[in-house]
Amino acid sequence: MGTYNLEYPKDATNTVKRYNAHAVYALETIHQIVNTCQILHVSFNTSSQPFPVVLPMIGQMGSFDRPSADVGDPLELYLHGYVSSRMMNTCKNSGNGDVDGGEQEGMPVCVSASHIDGLVLTLASYSHNYNYRSTVLFGYATHVKDDAEKLYAMELITNSVVPDRWRHTRLPPTKAEIQSTGILKVRITSGSAKISAGQAHDDKTDMGNEAMLDSTWTGVLPIHQTMGEPMPSSYNRVDVPSYVSEFVGDFNRDNTQLSLDAAEGARRAL
Amino acid sequence: MGTYNLEYPKDATNTVKRYNAHAVYALETIHQIVNTCQILHVSFNTSSQPFPVVLPMIGQMGSFDRPSADVGDPLELYLHGYVSSRMMNTCKNSGNGDVDGGEQEGMPVCVSASHIDGLVLTLASYSHNYNYRSTVLFGYATHVKDDAEKLYAMELITNSVVPDRWRHTRLPPTKAEIQSTGILKVRITSGSAKISAGQAHDDKTDMGNEAMLDSTWTGVLPIHQTMGEPMPSSYNRVDVPSYVSEFVGDFNRDNTQLSLDAAEGARRAL
Repeated sequence: MGTYNLEYPKDATNTVKRYNAHAVYALETIHQIVNTCQILHVSFNTSSQPFPVVLPMIGQMGSFDRPSADVGDPLELYLHGYVSSRMMNTCKNSGNGDVDGGEQEGMPVCVSASHIDGLVLTLASYSHNYNYRSTVLFGYATHVKDDAEKLYAMELITNSVVPDRWRHTRLPPTKAEIQSTGILKVRITSGSAKISAGQAHDDKTDMGNEAMLDSTWTGVLPIHQTMGEPMPSSYNRVDVPSYVSEFVGDFNRDNTQLSLDAAEGARRAL
Repeated sequence: MGTYNLEYPKDATNTVKRYNAHAVYALETIHQIVNTCQILHVSFNTSSQPFPVVLPMIGQMGSFDRPSADVGDPLELYLHGYVSSRMMNTCKNSGNGDVDGGEQEGMPVCVSASHIDGLVLTLASYSHNYNYRSTVLFGYATHVKDDAEKLYAMELITNSVVPDRWRHTRLPPTKAEIQSTGILKVRITSGSAKISAGQAHDDKTDMGNEAMLDSTWTGVLPIHQTMGEPMPSSYNRVDVPSYVSEFVGDFNRDNTQLSLDAAEGARRAL
């Protein structure tokens, strides 16, 4: 299905108004940004206070019904958290977080994933900018109660932290582990991404300011996440396996390249 | 005031329940996490939809009334955004975002700042963890309308991106630039931080599993943000100045050290 270049429909919720030339609605782009983000920021409301709550969580787009689905296909977002946490309880207590309820649609949530690729320094402070890739998804969260789907999500999320890690851990998880792992599934209703990439750019007036041009450094400070040397635990007995060392190498190479591509103005989505 | 080790009072909003040994309420720790985070995730509600909205924004803790305030003092959060953006409009249209209103307290917001310091790989998938520093602040956002306070916030935020950048940019900002820069000030009502640091740790049963110990790598993959070589713009005429190169060096050294300290279990707040 990925070949159809599916997009989230634009509506009042997700339509990007500011710098809308940077907006992307393609599922593939949006899902990639989410899946490569190590921390998602998830927002929900509680009945007891006027503030929405934002919590950092780990999550991954996937499809239990069609595990072979492509990243550009319609997918759900699986989020990991401890079952008795505030969010899980809110989802439960709101009386609409029960997947078995059928007609109940779930707890409204907003999920944001953001990567910073660089700091763009210009002559005018006003023209300073970040190179970034960010996405916002809206949807309804429900508790996953089915053990098979829970296991699917636990494997999906573990392998999103380090590819292929799941089958190298002690399997299967115990019943107690499965019970105390809370998984939320978010049915996505809309989403959008904003991607900003490029070099420093000043307006005409500043570009004619010879004194500023002669005195002020302009350009991009590329930024990327880096993994350092793996640090073995006190009880580790084995060498760093290839699936770990290759992941660290790929992670560092890909992220470095992304920050350089962004500075050169390439709008790559990965 | 920093020497008093002020803390945010614990109430229903901010009290950390899960892993509460990791919780920190000290203003200094919380404000440091916010001030070193390049993107904050800000959540607010709109009247037109059931979902809260989360947007990535740039911000910094500060005090216009007492600019020399210490990071551990009571501070406001200044957020930067375009004035006609959805958030700015929501703040305006909610009829409570007017600082001149006196009695109006502002738009309820939640702000989250998160740093990842490492991936903690254990024998059981259930025991996997991140080393991280995250904080959540609750408060009421109002528009800053006073030009002097706006300029204070613009300088504060520009210098948070690259220290000392402000005075190296074209000054002063034009009237049009000031007018079209939206600054929100968040009066903080409560906040908390969670800091997780340490090496891999498995439970007793798994630690007795010789086959797993002989086959599975356990330890920490330290993670930190890195800045690459500064990339000059096509119109740059000057060498990388020392305030930029020193910033890049400090940033890389400090972040690398933080990720290593975290893996060794040191709970440093910076």
